[in-house]
Amino acid sequence: MEHAQEQEASLEQTQMYCVQRPIYNQELLQGQLHRRQRTPQTLGQKIAHSCRCSSKRAKAHLYNFLPILKWLPRYPVKEYLLGDIISGISTGIMQLPQGLAYALLAAVPPVFGLYSSFYPVILYTFFGTSKHISIGTFAVVSMMVGGVAVREVPDEIFSLDSNSTNITDVLEYYSARDTKRVQVAVALAFLSGLIQLCLGFLRFGFVAIYLTEPLVHGFTTAAAVHVSVSQFKYLLGIKTSRYSGPLSVVYSIAAVLSKITTTNIAAMIVGLTCIVLLLIGKEINFRFKEKLPVPIPMEIIVVIIGTGVSAGMKLNEAYKVDVVGNIPQGLRAPAIPDIQLIPAIFGDAVAIAVVGFSMTVSMAKTFALKHDYTIDGNQELIALGICNSVGSFFQTFSVTCSMSRSLVQESTGGKTQIAGTLSAIMVLLVILAIGYLFEPLPQTVLAAIIMVNLKTMFRQFGDIMYFWKTSRIELAIWVVAFVASLFLGLDYGLLTAVAFAILTVIYRTQRPEYKILGQVPNTDIYCDVEEYEEVKEYPGIKIFQANTSLYFANTESYTTALKKKTGVHPGALLAARRKAQKRHAREIKAANEQRKKAVLKLTSSSTNDVEARVKHEIASDDLPVNGKFEDSNVQDTDVHDEHEHFVEPKTNIHSLILDFTPVNFVDSVGAKTLKAIIKEYKGVGVYVCVSSCSGPVMDELTRLNFFDESVTRELVFHSIHDAVLACQMKHGSAAKADSNL
Amino acid sequence: MEHAQEQEASLEQTQMYCVQRPIYNQELLQGQLHRRQRTPQTLGQKIAHSCRCSSKRAKAHLYNFLPILKWLPRYPVKEYLLGDIISGISTGIMQLPQGLAYALLAAVPPVFGLYSSFYPVILYTFFGTSKHISIGTFAVVSMMVGGVAVREVPDEIFSLDSNSTNITDVLEYYSARDTKRVQVAVALAFLSGLIQLCLGFLRFGFVAIYLTEPLVHGFTTAAAVHVSVSQFKYLLGIKTSRYSGPLSVVYSIAAVLSKITTTNIAAMIVGLTCIVLLLIGKEINFRFKEKLPVPIPMEIIVVIIGTGVSAGMKLNEAYKVDVVGNIPQGLRAPAIPDIQLIPAIFGDAVAIAVVGFSMTVSMAKTFALKHDYTIDGNQELIALGICNSVGSFFQTFSVTCSMSRSLVQESTGGKTQIAGTLSAIMVLLVILAIGYLFEPLPQTVLAAIIMVNLKTMFRQFGDIMYFWKTSRIELAIWVVAFVASLFLGLDYGLLTAVAFAILTVIYRTQRPEYKILGQVPNTDIYCDVEEYEEVKEYPGIKIFQANTSLYFANTESYTTALKKKTGVHPGALLAARRKAQKRHAREIKAANEQRKKAVLKLTSSSTNDVEARVKHEIASDDLPVNGKFEDSNVQDTDVHDEHEHFVEPKTNIHSLILDFTPVNFVDSVGAKTLKAIIKEYKGVGVYVCVSSCSGPVMDELTRLNFFDESVTRELVFHSIHDAVLACQMKHGSAAKADSNL
Repeated sequence: MEHAQEQEASLEQTQMYCVQRPIYNQELLQGQLHRRQRTPQTLGQKIAHSCRCSSKRAKAHLYNFLPILKWLPRYPVKEYLLGDIISGISTGIMQLPQGLAYALLAAVPPVFGLYSSFYPVILYTFFGTSKHISIGTFAVVSMMVGGVAVREVPDEIFSLDSNSTNITDVLEYYSARDTKRVQVAVALAFLSGLIQLCLGFLRFGFVAIYLTEPLVHGFTTAAAVHVSVSQFKYLLGIKTSRYSGPLSVVYSIAAVLSKITTTNIAAMIVGLTCIVLLLIGKEINFRFKEKLPVPIPMEIIVVIIGTGVSAGMKLNEAYKVDVVGNIPQGLRAPAIPDIQLIPAIFGDAVAIAVVGFSMTVSMAKTFALKHDYTIDGNQELIALGICNSVGSFFQTFSVTCSMSRSLVQESTGGKTQIAGTLSAIMVLLVILAIGYLFEPLPQTVLAAIIMVNLKTMFRQFGDIMYFWKTSRIELAIWVVAFVASLFLGLDYGLLTAVAFAILTVIYRTQRPEYKILGQVPNTDIYCDVEEYEEVKEYPGIKIFQANTSLYFANTESYTTALKKKTGVHPGALLAARRKAQKRHAREIKAANEQRKKAVLKLTSSSTNDVEARVKHEIASDDLPVNGKFEDSNVQDTDVHDEHEHFVEPKTNIHSLILDFTPVNFVDSVGAKTLKAIIKEYKGVGVYVCVSSCSGPVMDELTRLNFFDESVTRELVFHSIHDAVLACQMKHGSAAKADSNL
Repeated sequence: MEHAQEQEASLEQTQMYCVQRPIYNQELLQGQLHRRQRTPQTLGQKIAHSCRCSSKRAKAHLYNFLPILKWLPRYPVKEYLLGDIISGISTGIMQLPQGLAYALLAAVPPVFGLYSSFYPVILYTFFGTSKHISIGTFAVVSMMVGGVAVREVPDEIFSLDSNSTNITDVLEYYSARDTKRVQVAVALAFLSGLIQLCLGFLRFGFVAIYLTEPLVHGFTTAAAVHVSVSQFKYLLGIKTSRYSGPLSVVYSIAAVLSKITTTNIAAMIVGLTCIVLLLIGKEINFRFKEKLPVPIPMEIIVVIIGTGVSAGMKLNEAYKVDVVGNIPQGLRAPAIPDIQLIPAIFGDAVAIAVVGFSMTVSMAKTFALKHDYTIDGNQELIALGICNSVGSFFQTFSVTCSMSRSLVQESTGGKTQIAGTLSAIMVLLVILAIGYLFEPLPQTVLAAIIMVNLKTMFRQFGDIMYFWKTSRIELAIWVVAFVASLFLGLDYGLLTAVAFAILTVIYRTQRPEYKILGQVPNTDIYCDVEEYEEVKEYPGIKIFQANTSLYFANTESYTTALKKKTGVHPGALLAARRKAQKRHAREIKAANEQRKKAVLKLTSSSTNDVEARVKHEIASDDLPVNGKFEDSNVQDTDVHDEHEHFVEPKTNIHSLILDFTPVNFVDSVGAKTLKAIIKEYKGVGVYVCVSSCSGPVMDELTRLNFFDESVTRELVFHSIHDAVLACQMKHGSAAKADSNL
């Protein structure tokens, strides 16, 4: 009690909300307000405006297209250079093993991973707007590329002479297969880059918005599973063919399990040792983040040790451990990608383009927010498009921003794109000078690097619990994205997940919460009557609200819910009424015939009088006339008396207020439904009005010819409270009129 | 002026809207209200409830499943029978020619059209809830069936011995082809029926809601074009093969045009005569609707005349006019549909099931509304499913409700399903007794009947103008449905159209109208400031509204629009501020050094004093501290004076109100964005609050951990006016506090 008093006291201290104004319906309100004269820009003007050309505009466009022109001349050498150099070296050290490893995922020889870690990175320096992201090979995208390469160039099509045990034959077979796969990967990079470029120039950067967070998490988690499954065979040194397409995860696991007895113990030991080393390195880097000037480059250490051990112990010859093999020195001359492959890989290219872009832009945004600068989504698309499409002429596969490298680049003090350039130059040195040194590197080491890098992605399984608590719909998106991407493959999985995410929005508009509102006493506030104890309904007035717009997909459930929630079924009411009238008519008829007999017996005297009364009865037309009722004969004298005893079945609701606060748009189906509701309820004597219709919805209703003589703007009130007051007045005067009669 | 006064006077007459209450934010409001204790039903209870079994429930279920049990015992013979008989005969007379004609569309021999006009109609009598619709063959569905039949059994695969000119060979070829096509059509009917049954039992009748009116109109218009194109060759007596799949319309037209010289003049004359006769008949029936007791059955008249003329003039032999040919007498023994075809036709079956159902249910609803009875959408699905699936055992193809026949059945006085049964019995008589009489009927007559029946569908081209005026989005749906169905074929077209219709909903949520609201003076009403002249903004307060929910697909444009519309860019402001601070710091430094020199020259006396002031300066910490500003040295004595001249770039907006009236849901991305907006603006001294957040959205925000120490429920106000009053108070007291300092 005391608590309540305290609250009251505190309430009195606050200033009050006082309003005194007329009750507004739209007719009245629009009458008082004057629309501003707005001359809309004509199409010609718009085109002229967008085509206008000035040197200032041209300069701005150039700066937008080549951001390096803007930041490089102002580069504060003293402040930034040291940070960029340290960061560049740290990132370059990561580019190297990741390039080699992810080439494995992309099903191409390792050197192409190095190419992909060089050309695109250099290109991004010129076109990119983000200062901290590290462009280059990325597990998920590499996996997608690998999937396509394997699908287009499967192991089987070359196995015609599988009986041949001649070593040269086998080598030739592998090199022919790999050449084809490189062609596919390169064409894919070209096409996905082209798509990104087009989307960027068309300012379609917004496509990434459909990749909502739960979707991306579910998708990348599934990708992590795909990647780790595909690496098991390298880790264990088992030789199986690689699968792609739907259910490839299942096939891959089955294939590995069926050959588990052929595990290469040496490869497994090396691989597991690497995993342990890498995990320890990660842990140290995480624990002593503050104390270490730069993170320990564990990956390159593992690669160097692995290469050394492999070369020293002759792991390849002595233990048949698969090694990276031939790394040709120097760069390749540019070549035009194989255009003929495009029709077969178009869908995949779209998927890779979208995934690549969304990774880049989300990472770029994170850093931009952290370091207070802005990035341009469309320019990022263009930059990434150039990286991929131009890069593809130099035999790179699809790249995007890698999370692990970007974090290192940022945390080691990288300030601008210069850091990325330096990392690319490091890769270039390796390609040109010491690449061949890595030839004895066991593939199992690369598999270990890949798998340890998936750690953060696997941690996303924790999302399930998080989304379970916060939003079931987002959990559903996560699960659908994960399951679909896992079993249908990453491309179809992504498509399915996006379609599902879009459908959840439809679902939300289609399964709204239907409520009856009541007043919080002494205020103009209306809340769900089922939710709060204090909320009261006005007698005879029902306020109905559905928290959605009214359009084709939910008009039916709206009408159903309206009838159920308000408890007023005009159809049932009419039927009951008709039945009662029929019964009544029958009773009258029976009574009439009885009386006729009586009259006949009494030899009537006042025939004229009776006739006059019959005429009066017909003229008064008291009974609602309808198809079936017309058939029954109402021709008796004493109907009037009888009629007074007859009570029509009716509802005790006189007004129904449809609250349109949550309605953001209506379509023709919605407008028709609304009109039908108003007319149907009018038929049973219930006054239906609409409250809180927003401006755009009013405009839409007007365009849809919703308003006419029977349905006027006077039925639309500014707020629920306006409508309630109007309904009370209307009913009050109606009741008064009734009692006056 | 006078007008305005009049209005004022009329306003005074109305009752006033008076409210006086505290200013409510959610914290305060929730404190005053008490949530009702609601014990949600557990899953177990729900299951128990739905599984509860009683004789009453069983009876209700039985009545629902077999509506005939309900209406037949109460059939008022005297009142209804005559109407039903007349209507039954009229409808039966139409079933006959339409059955023959639509069999042509479905690419099966004519007698199967008759079967399809018999079995399903009888079955519907038992299971259907609509009293007026006429089940049977329908042009659009028949066309879809024909498309599948032709695709699965193309003309070409049988043309291996096309060189053979032997008549028996040709006949055998045709009969083999037709037998196969019948198998496909029957399997399709079986599968689509099964799908309808399943949807019905699962209460999935709502799937039809996605077929919004513009979509159905566009789709059926395209179907009409398909149908008429497919009939041209029959009308002209040209022999070409039939096409199916994407672009089949184009191929068909090209094929007909390329053989236009082979037009059979006799067939063309007969066909055009029939078209003229039918059009005249339609016109008479329309003009003298009121005077005619039953419409003139022009179709059967044309069929009879056509048959007579053909038989008398031996059109087939003498003029090589194609005739209907062999109509076997009697019914066929039931057979199990060919299950093996199912995988190939599954998608088509779904499309046919959905189209068939939506036709039936929309027609049934129209009549139910007109005659004041209710139909059960799910039971209609079940009924139609039984018609198709059970019917298919007797060699019928897919059926649905036909508009033209249903209108005749209703307008000639049909009262119940009895009329349909009678029409089926008429068809049965023809099949059993006089079917063979129709064998000389020229196919061109049937083509004429089909094409004239498309008249109403072609009239739907007028929709384009209508939707152009009322709603561009619905026009887009119409056009997409039409174009896609025309060129991709009816199945893919329907799919595309549905996907597009769903995307328009997303589009509406994604491209909302962004507005700045202002107050209508002396009220609590807030409107778009750009729209009305009277609307005024409060100085220092911006009210921003987007008429959409806030979720992953529109958060970005929301943030962009917010910054653009309010003109407050926190990022730019911060950057400007930082720049100004830097410049200021540099100036101070310069001044400092100058002074130092001066001080050195003067051999300072009051060093202690200076030091004290420096300390004071550092302690007062007046300047916002940030990464870059910390670097610059603020160590001078006279900073304080200098500092007073320094004006930080800031905005004249002190409060920003985000109106959440139109927000029906938020997701995690939306909540995060909102939080980011609040924090970002706080950083530049703008107080952001939210108004008119609905109950469900508050619950969602709470679940998404939106509220914490920095973002409390006190930021959420019950209405815009509450928020405005609170902002004014807050700013007033802040300003007072400032001036007190």
